[in-house]
Amino acid sequence: MEKLNIPLYQRLYEDIKYKIRRNEYKKNSKLESIRSLAKRLDISTTTVEKAYNQLLIEGYITSIPRSGYIVLAVDLLEKSTHNPLVDPIITPAYPNTKLTNDLFDIKNYKAIVNKVINYDSDKLYTECDPRGEEELREEIRKYVLSERDVKCDVNQIIIGAGIQNLLLILLNITDKKSVAYLSPAFKKAMNVFKSYGYTLKPRKTIKEISRIKADYLYLSPSNIYPTGEVIKIKERNDIIKWSKQNDAFIIEDDYNFFLRYNSYTVPSIHSYSNGENVIYMGSFSKTFLPSMRLSFMILPVPLYNIYKNRFSDFSQGVSKLEQLTLARFMKEGCFRRHTKKLYNLYKEKNEAITSSLIRQNKHNNFSIRGNDSNLHVILDFKTKYYLDTFIRNCDRYSLGYEKINGSNSVIFPYSGIETKNIKRLIKDLFYNM
Amino acid sequence: MEKLNIPLYQRLYEDIKYKIRRNEYKKNSKLESIRSLAKRLDISTTTVEKAYNQLLIEGYITSIPRSGYIVLAVDLLEKSTHNPLVDPIITPAYPNTKLTNDLFDIKNYKAIVNKVINYDSDKLYTECDPRGEEELREEIRKYVLSERDVKCDVNQIIIGAGIQNLLLILLNITDKKSVAYLSPAFKKAMNVFKSYGYTLKPRKTIKEISRIKADYLYLSPSNIYPTGEVIKIKERNDIIKWSKQNDAFIIEDDYNFFLRYNSYTVPSIHSYSNGENVIYMGSFSKTFLPSMRLSFMILPVPLYNIYKNRFSDFSQGVSKLEQLTLARFMKEGCFRRHTKKLYNLYKEKNEAITSSLIRQNKHNNFSIRGNDSNLHVILDFKTKYYLDTFIRNCDRYSLGYEKINGSNSVIFPYSGIETKNIKRLIKDLFYNM
Repeated sequence: MEKLNIPLYQRLYEDIKYKIRRNEYKKNSKLESIRSLAKRLDISTTTVEKAYNQLLIEGYITSIPRSGYIVLAVDLLEKSTHNPLVDPIITPAYPNTKLTNDLFDIKNYKAIVNKVINYDSDKLYTECDPRGEEELREEIRKYVLSERDVKCDVNQIIIGAGIQNLLLILLNITDKKSVAYLSPAFKKAMNVFKSYGYTLKPRKTIKEISRIKADYLYLSPSNIYPTGEVIKIKERNDIIKWSKQNDAFIIEDDYNFFLRYNSYTVPSIHSYSNGENVIYMGSFSKTFLPSMRLSFMILPVPLYNIYKNRFSDFSQGVSKLEQLTLARFMKEGCFRRHTKKLYNLYKEKNEAITSSLIRQNKHNNFSIRGNDSNLHVILDFKTKYYLDTFIRNCDRYSLGYEKINGSNSVIFPYSGIETKNIKRLIKDLFYNM
Repeated sequence: MEKLNIPLYQRLYEDIKYKIRRNEYKKNSKLESIRSLAKRLDISTTTVEKAYNQLLIEGYITSIPRSGYIVLAVDLLEKSTHNPLVDPIITPAYPNTKLTNDLFDIKNYKAIVNKVINYDSDKLYTECDPRGEEELREEIRKYVLSERDVKCDVNQIIIGAGIQNLLLILLNITDKKSVAYLSPAFKKAMNVFKSYGYTLKPRKTIKEISRIKADYLYLSPSNIYPTGEVIKIKERNDIIKWSKQNDAFIIEDDYNFFLRYNSYTVPSIHSYSNGENVIYMGSFSKTFLPSMRLSFMILPVPLYNIYKNRFSDFSQGVSKLEQLTLARFMKEGCFRRHTKKLYNLYKEKNEAITSSLIRQNKHNNFSIRGNDSNLHVILDFKTKYYLDTFIRNCDRYSLGYEKINGSNSVIFPYSGIETKNIKRLIKDLFYNM
């Protein structure tokens, strides 16, 4: 492993290798015997033996009984000497899209990480359970039961390093062909389906979806992107029936379910379907720490039974330290306190942004949508001029936004703006309008 | 988020919902007006409004201008009341397969985790770079350059939560059909290829592979499983040429490259091919902590350029705390010290196991293979009787092993056996033989 003090045998090996590669030692020629070379160089036979052994292993020479070590033909490819130069990827960081963590109790988090290292260090020395650590799965079971009325056995919960990696497992244990979804889709998820050769079936409404056939339906029924709308109870019933009639699975991606500012959280589809045709998915990146990559899915019993026979095909992607820390964080009630604080902060921001926008809208130049949930608002401008002016002002302040194609609408995220700055900033963004 | 102190509006909402679901409030019937209900119950209109709003959002009622709130038809599916019961997955933990970490400096590791939380907490509040943190990629670049002569730009390095997750990215940015490999294969990797619809082309030798066509060649040239053999220099040249002629990529899975007990580590294929057709892959689970899930791949420039345009399709799977901790661990030289200690310990175990086995083999009942590298030995027994006896003894001590199909051979891992116990244990495993 160390390159500084190169041992003698290695120097000898390098020297002979160099000579073979340079054709100074010709093909089929015999190398000096170990004894003879050792004597000539005044080194031990063990050293020569080790050097020859290395050349043997790599295939530069071969050993022929009663004949000795013979040089093999090596048709050389030159080793590269340069580093390739490539263009870097630039990922702009917009201040308004940052997730707020003014409230994250880093000291407490640190204390819990240290507890895990102190008390659970034995566990860190062993491999991960392919499904994730039981401690964490049990905490997740209790959490989804109390918050989302999702009933499951702890064994049905599978932890993974993000939704994409969970989809890798899911698409592996099922043999399906098509996926329906409400457009616009969660692109990163659809990308996995696409790469698995699935037919993508984007539709505008649940009604349209219930008229087609598909093997999967990918949906965030409690928070449709980008409007934050909710699938109504009648349509919920319809798609549960549809899934049963079509032998299809609903993937309920329940992200940001708790970010509803003017209403109570909406029940999960899983809770209405007996979990039969529903794969429930959740993530901790948005509720815990944006830099934490930890998601989970809950498999319906028939899929769990397939997974059970195939679990050794998959590796767990999340490190144990991370899993055990989150488990303790949840168990000690810190997670609940944290999400509550987070919710209150976002609600405050949401109210500040909504009232500031209304203040800027005396002439009804735009309407506001999607401010009932999530961490962004949608602004529908009356004219392209107003839209362009707004966007120009966003660019001036290096703020992120997303235009909605074929409209004068724009999605404006506000999670990263401090509440005290919202009023002033919104005023500036409507300058010249 | 809190369920204990249920607010009044929510109790009202639950009550009305219950009545709608029980058909006490009939379809198309009108709900009492907000004002009237508030007056009757002696509560604020805001409370009633919030309850109605929640029912509106979920679709139990609708609002008709100048008419009021109308109950919608809800064709009910009953909520589940039970937890499904499923059989758990049993994953036996064999003591001899455990990775040794007697040597892992947990105190130092803890100190570094704390440094990251103290000094880099700002970074923990932002999302991960899809490729992984630059600090870590730079440390990996220096490491593979010094240890494996792998030359690359830091941008070509992509971090992921295990080889499977890196393959998910790789197979996404390429459009290929077949993969060749030396059997037996690394099953977890082949499983990903298979699920992507690839044709698997297992072959016994490099010679056979060089005669067929394939888009990928998955290979661990410096440590072929399970023998630990090495692809000889001539064959290395052959497959590099083969890859160029066939426009194929070699995936060089360079796991355990440093575990060579009687020779120096063998140079990587990447270093001989100018990295042109080689995707170099590595992992830290075996060299660092078994519970850490962190791998990386180095993309050749043409693939990097495709990835560059598609990077936003993928999420990083490894949490930042983990990435930054490993980066510091490497930067401060701890990783190099750790692997060196680990190597010495395994070498010691390897020597103890080899000499103990030789001692038990006075009658030449078996031969020993594969003890030049890795953390297991292969025993080829002369007869099925000897094999069965050995296996029965392993079972008696709850030790793990892997039979090689169609032979009297067995793979016996020893990483988890303490050096001081090896002699005694090996003696016991040959009891009755």
